[in-house]
Amino acid sequence: WGRAAPQPPGLPLALRRAFSNDKILVELDESSGVATMKFKSPPVNSLSLDFLTEFCISLEKLENNRACRGIIFTSAVPKIFSSGLDITEMCGKSTEHYAEFWRAVQEMWLRLYGSNMVTVAAVNGSSPAGGCLLALSSDYRIMVENPKFSIGLNEAQLGIVAPFWFKDTFVNVVGHRVAERSLQLGSLHPAPEALKFGLVDELVAEEKLQEKAAAVMAQWLALPDHARQLTKSMMRKAVLDRLVAHREEDIQNFISFISKESIQKSLRMYMEMLKKKK
Amino acid sequence: WGRAAPQPPGLPLALRRAFSNDKILVELDESSGVATMKFKSPPVNSLSLDFLTEFCISLEKLENNRACRGIIFTSAVPKIFSSGLDITEMCGKSTEHYAEFWRAVQEMWLRLYGSNMVTVAAVNGSSPAGGCLLALSSDYRIMVENPKFSIGLNEAQLGIVAPFWFKDTFVNVVGHRVAERSLQLGSLHPAPEALKFGLVDELVAEEKLQEKAAAVMAQWLALPDHARQLTKSMMRKAVLDRLVAHREEDIQNFISFISKESIQKSLRMYMEMLKKKK
Amino acid sequence: WGRAAPQPPGLPLALRRAFSNDKILVELDESSGVATMKFKSPPVNSLSLDFLTEFCISLEKLENNRACRGIIFTSAVPKIFSSGLDITEMCGKSTEHYAEFWRAVQEMWLRLYGSNMVTVAAVNGSSPAGGCLLALSSDYRIMVENPKFSIGLNEAQLGIVAPFWFKDTFVNVVGHRVAERSLQLGSLHPAPEALKFGLVDELVAEEKLQEKAAAVMAQWLALPDHARQLTKSMMRKAVLDRLVAHREEDIQNFISFISKESIQKSLRMYMEMLKKKK
Repeated sequence: WGRAAPQPPGLPLALRRAFSNDKILVELDESSGVATMKFKSPPVNSLSLDFLTEFCISLEKLENNRACRGIIFTSAVPKIFSSGLDITEMCGKSTEHYAEFWRAVQEMWLRLYGSNMVTVAAVNGSSPAGGCLLALSSDYRIMVENPKFSIGLNEAQLGIVAPFWFKDTFVNVVGHRVAERSLQLGSLHPAPEALKFGLVDELVAEEKLQEKAAAVMAQWLALPDHARQLTKSMMRKAVLDRLVAHREEDIQNFISFISKESIQKSLRMYMEMLKKKK
Repeated sequence: WGRAAPQPPGLPLALRRAFSNDKILVELDESSGVATMKFKSPPVNSLSLDFLTEFCISLEKLENNRACRGIIFTSAVPKIFSSGLDITEMCGKSTEHYAEFWRAVQEMWLRLYGSNMVTVAAVNGSSPAGGCLLALSSDYRIMVENPKFSIGLNEAQLGIVAPFWFKDTFVNVVGHRVAERSLQLGSLHPAPEALKFGLVDELVAEEKLQEKAAAVMAQWLALPDHARQLTKSMMRKAVLDRLVAHREEDIQNFISFISKESIQKSLRMYMEMLKKKK
Repeated sequence: WGRAAPQPPGLPLALRRAFSNDKILVELDESSGVATMKFKSPPVNSLSLDFLTEFCISLEKLENNRACRGIIFTSAVPKIFSSGLDITEMCGKSTEHYAEFWRAVQEMWLRLYGSNMVTVAAVNGSSPAGGCLLALSSDYRIMVENPKFSIGLNEAQLGIVAPFWFKDTFVNVVGHRVAERSLQLGSLHPAPEALKFGLVDELVAEEKLQEKAAAVMAQWLALPDHARQLTKSMMRKAVLDRLVAHREEDIQNFISFISKESIQKSLRMYMEMLKKKK
């Protein structure tokens, strides 16, 4: 499924040791082979079309850089890892826009879940919906042990349904029963509960997070790349193939669902509520 | 798979707020949208053809009643939730009877596991075999914390085999390993063990059961119906589809298995043993 | 998939109460119906072509002996259950040899995972790679509670990849998430961790191991054979069928992978390291 990410014309693709665009800061430590991708798109690192495009380009660059073997994902915005898909992209836009946006969401997941590199999510804030998917698609999840930070696929709370490949990824991490209950309730699990359900692999104090992520990464990088990559692919292939086989259908489903007036209305109400919260 | 339940001719189908037939008492609280189905078929709420028919009709009425959004299943018979399939229906009867009975068992599961409503099993007594399936097919299971009450798919103890869709439902709740071991041993798990294995979601004192079931129901009903229903269907569709695709074959398998003289003999012996127990 | 095991010409196949060949001691207690297969191939009970052939022949004899209903696997070599596939069989040999060896590995698993008998692994030592598969393929795993003994599919540590049917067997026991992480890291889990992850079912003191294995076996044999066997087959059939459908392809994959100079080199280095350890 290695089709290229959608690339905005004119964007410079030359490799630099560190490059910063608008929304993601990428730092590569060539001595360890570990890159850090820091999400810096305030207020809540929402996954807009621009963010997703930049994410895919950054990921592709690192995949193609032989000096890079692993990536740590973390947030530069306090208290939030990522708030998930940007609702403004799904509200009051054209069918063409919905299609472009959804294709970018798919692309992000296909590239991340299928990445050959070791991927560690250092979850230093809340991580609902698409933010949770980002963490679930990594190889390992470390979360700050703050019970005010929560994580989960809470789409049902907004009156929408997580796509089947969000669900497949979730089931692969927490099993069928936990996924069924959590998805139906649209649960956001506080960090300690997320650990209990296996949604994250461990909790650490905030000040220890980067150190711990580096230690976990070193442990995973101690393995020979080739055998680890083939093993990862063996574990994830069935679920990746399912989206690849139904990609256009999934886009059409998204468009027809999101275009419903009832769904548009609940998204508008949700956005109003968010604005008042500020 | 929305085919209609087998409906005995002449049975009145008019909607009433509360209706009681022989074996199940249905109470609908229109203010909360929650119905309670109380099994009242002494001595052990066994799933006879009559019970199953009444169950399907009651369920269908509630599905079609827009005032109803959720159902709590519980027993009006002390110490037993349901003893499972009625063995007298499987012993010394005609091939036609076996076919009719098995189709009713399938229908019960297809309607319950695929129900659009929120379903909560308030398990206030032991729940072997088909009784366990009833609980497993609900969205949430609360059991009285009495270690004398047990639950499990114990078919193997009787020399029979749980059908593949009992197994699929079980695996979806407890995972492959627990299911493999429990099914092979025909285990009946005392309530505390059932909680440990995830066979039930929580235990409460008997006097708190209905209150707890109502609280859980309220939590699930807080979600928008449409998103919750689509999510539930996404989680359960693969397993439901499997029976729908093999329904007639499954009936033939049941008939040829149950018609074996060796199986008939062990069922007769089991019934003799039960009679002596009284 | 009941094709016969490869049988060396001239080997006596007559049934004896106890028979000992070179590598496995089989003792059958006809009063209980329980056989014990003791691996006695020092220094580490590695799964050579000879060992696998003897294993399959012994298993087949017991399957065909109506006096035998269950088998306990254990080691007669201190501190090691089995070290897994014999690396000398995979190093510097002909394509024909690789094919013959891999077919024997497949045969071992097909016969063991699909065995009609109750199989209990009494793991009295470390059990990496193929040794772990042997335990995973049994119905129940008891391990000595010595944290110096470890168990796991550690292929990735050697730069090789566990075949898909090792993976399927592993996932059936520990679930997708634990399997994904453990396989990618090539983890060898000390006994207490193996228990925590469900890789083994219980731990006992070394001097209690045989007694415990006998007690577990008696519990499983209390069930009627026919229902238990059909249930076991229902649980394992999908995964068994997958190898049967891809058996020749899997052999070709193994040959082309193992024939690579880079793989041969790492296996040679690993063997050198093992020799120096002595």
